[in-house]
Amino acid sequence: MGTDIDHLLTIAEALRAVRERAVLLTPRLCSLAEASGYCLAEDVTADLDLPPFDKALVDGYAVRSSDLNAGECRLTVGEEIVAGRTPTRALAPHEAAAIMTGAPLPPDADAVVMVEKTRRDGLDVIFEGGLVRPGQNRLLRGREMRAGDIVLRKGERLNAPRLGLLASVGRSEVLVFPRPRVAVVPTGDELVEPQVVPGPGQIRNSNAVMLQALAGSAGAEVCSFPIAPDERTGLRSALERGLSFDVLTITGGVSAGNRDLVPEVLQSLGVTCVFHKVQVKPGKPLWFGVGPPRGDAPGTLVFGLPGNPVSGIVGFLLFVRPALRALASPAESLPIVSRRRLARSFAHSSDRPTYYPSRFSPESAGAEAGIEPLDWAGSADLRTVAQADGFAVFPAGDRHYQAGEVVDFLHLG
Amino acid sequence: MGTDIDHLLTIAEALRAVRERAVLLTPRLCSLAEASGYCLAEDVTADLDLPPFDKALVDGYAVRSSDLNAGECRLTVGEEIVAGRTPTRALAPHEAAAIMTGAPLPPDADAVVMVEKTRRDGLDVIFEGGLVRPGQNRLLRGREMRAGDIVLRKGERLNAPRLGLLASVGRSEVLVFPRPRVAVVPTGDELVEPQVVPGPGQIRNSNAVMLQALAGSAGAEVCSFPIAPDERTGLRSALERGLSFDVLTITGGVSAGNRDLVPEVLQSLGVTCVFHKVQVKPGKPLWFGVGPPRGDAPGTLVFGLPGNPVSGIVGFLLFVRPALRALASPAESLPIVSRRRLARSFAHSSDRPTYYPSRFSPESAGAEAGIEPLDWAGSADLRTVAQADGFAVFPAGDRHYQAGEVVDFLHLG
Repeated sequence: MGTDIDHLLTIAEALRAVRERAVLLTPRLCSLAEASGYCLAEDVTADLDLPPFDKALVDGYAVRSSDLNAGECRLTVGEEIVAGRTPTRALAPHEAAAIMTGAPLPPDADAVVMVEKTRRDGLDVIFEGGLVRPGQNRLLRGREMRAGDIVLRKGERLNAPRLGLLASVGRSEVLVFPRPRVAVVPTGDELVEPQVVPGPGQIRNSNAVMLQALAGSAGAEVCSFPIAPDERTGLRSALERGLSFDVLTITGGVSAGNRDLVPEVLQSLGVTCVFHKVQVKPGKPLWFGVGPPRGDAPGTLVFGLPGNPVSGIVGFLLFVRPALRALASPAESLPIVSRRRLARSFAHSSDRPTYYPSRFSPESAGAEAGIEPLDWAGSADLRTVAQADGFAVFPAGDRHYQAGEVVDFLHLG
Repeated sequence: MGTDIDHLLTIAEALRAVRERAVLLTPRLCSLAEASGYCLAEDVTADLDLPPFDKALVDGYAVRSSDLNAGECRLTVGEEIVAGRTPTRALAPHEAAAIMTGAPLPPDADAVVMVEKTRRDGLDVIFEGGLVRPGQNRLLRGREMRAGDIVLRKGERLNAPRLGLLASVGRSEVLVFPRPRVAVVPTGDELVEPQVVPGPGQIRNSNAVMLQALAGSAGAEVCSFPIAPDERTGLRSALERGLSFDVLTITGGVSAGNRDLVPEVLQSLGVTCVFHKVQVKPGKPLWFGVGPPRGDAPGTLVFGLPGNPVSGIVGFLLFVRPALRALASPAESLPIVSRRRLARSFAHSSDRPTYYPSRFSPESAGAEAGIEPLDWAGSADLRTVAQADGFAVFPAGDRHYQAGEVVDFLHLG
């Protein structure tokens, strides 16, 4: 009945098995107003030169620089070119045009002098700044982009400037990889909903809201199911519905206990088990499989997470989050890990790599902040994890870590 | 007509003026399923001890440690205690109870032996692991929290573990500071919507979608208005509607040009100007004011951002994002800045502090990544900013910066 640790997949092996099966979702058109955070599923080209004309970069006066550089400091003001208007004629010698930021320069003007360096005198304008560099405060047509240039590439994630750029090349819709649709199914007869006072042996369902938030933060659209019972018919009906989603996450029902029906019911629904356990602490009893194809779409990725809340979080961050990202982005998708200095010493002892709730040290700030392992009561202790920024990673083995040593850190956010 | 740089507010002065006027919004009840990302507006206490009983941390056998430590290695299996069930009687001497992770220990049991270290033999179980520490694999009642403990405090931002913790103390709703409601009003006769091919002197409205994404990422609920004209009646009607929101951001219409009606129309609607220009590049012509009180609610915070897209982004990150955070969180809210090493040298020359689009250097990764200023064509050049991770900050003055020097970096995301 004993399980030999050597027979379990390592985290890297399990992650590879998940990523191999996480296939990019079919792209769909999305309006710009809704596209923030999505990854582009097409290359985007410019439809026009930008700027479409030689353009003023400041409010002031368009001039021929040769006039001022020849010693003139007073020019006659001709046209006034406000934004949205086009000059009607070329600039005559010894003439200036009042111009607003963003407006087109008149032909033969080659520079703009800021209004702050000028003084108006009746019909003339007096320049107080001395020499003018040809091209000063002028943006040449096409400097930003030429029609036909690729300005954004497939796979780039849409943020505010990229959305602005799409608008500026005439796109009001764009092809993106959609958000994965995720079903969260809590299981277990011992669970009651949060508003219920738990009776003897019962615990409140904290996993559903937690997984919903984790999946939502990872960019998924989440549907949270009611608690499914530890009983074949009810469980089967919930899991069958869950198999219409891109990803099905089940909490509870996958540990070594004898009432764990989840793997059995999944199998009866055509879900193929890829692995069951992983060399990780907490979260060893993690179940992963793939459902039958859904028409043209590939089968649902099915994750059975341990019912212990913190085991579930670690399993999610290590395996589900990378899978969700891989469904929605062609970029390589791995757990979000950085290297961090331990702010205090720590004694670690386990035959499995261990993820230990830790927070950024309040004494050091920003990107270089050290991390402090927290005083933790084990994998049900959410109160401590609620103060964590992530998990310090200690490799398998028994060792005393000194303050200042650098370890991997798995980010929660 | 010249503007003396000394008369403009510094960034710090302008930010202080904004933050003084950004008052926390009135708390509201929110269901857990919708509360991710919000800040708590109440202290939350535990309603019960957790765990509510001495609990098994692994699947295995509950024992009296004294039996095994006295030399026994075979005990009779009595009850089977699955999760969700309560033991019906105390453990007799020389007896073990099969127990699942999370189930309550029977009275008189003081340790749990993992199933992997045992072997079943008919009605007995044989222990192969040697000595058992009293308390091994047992979590004592109340170890995580005691009824009445404050488990989360006002101001803490709700993430997945904190939501799970709220569920575990019986909360299905919680008091939070709501998301600010933001109106985005683009102005300018030169603007056309993205799907239109711009005529001479026209440019596409890239600001609306960009500000919508920036405000959304900063946690706001955003309403994007159609383009308002450079004409009193139409502009007034749009801005009047905008003054029903918590924050009104207007793009365009606040530079030194003579058709800038925005400040005038705002004043006629009872908006008090707090400042107009700031010592910053790009983004100097930034307008900030406060609208008349809205019933019991304070007046709308009104930001007039420059129409140049990159000036608008910098103004947003420096002033609007901190304001949005201050409306929704009691924590100190400042622009998101870190200290970063320059990955290449850079010559800077300006009488204003300058925010220069830069990206994380591909050669160095993670928290310690250096930054590279990008080759930028000025404040309309979104194509370059679309490849940036933020803005390197160069103080006013003329200076050559060496690669390796450390500067402030304003984060885009």
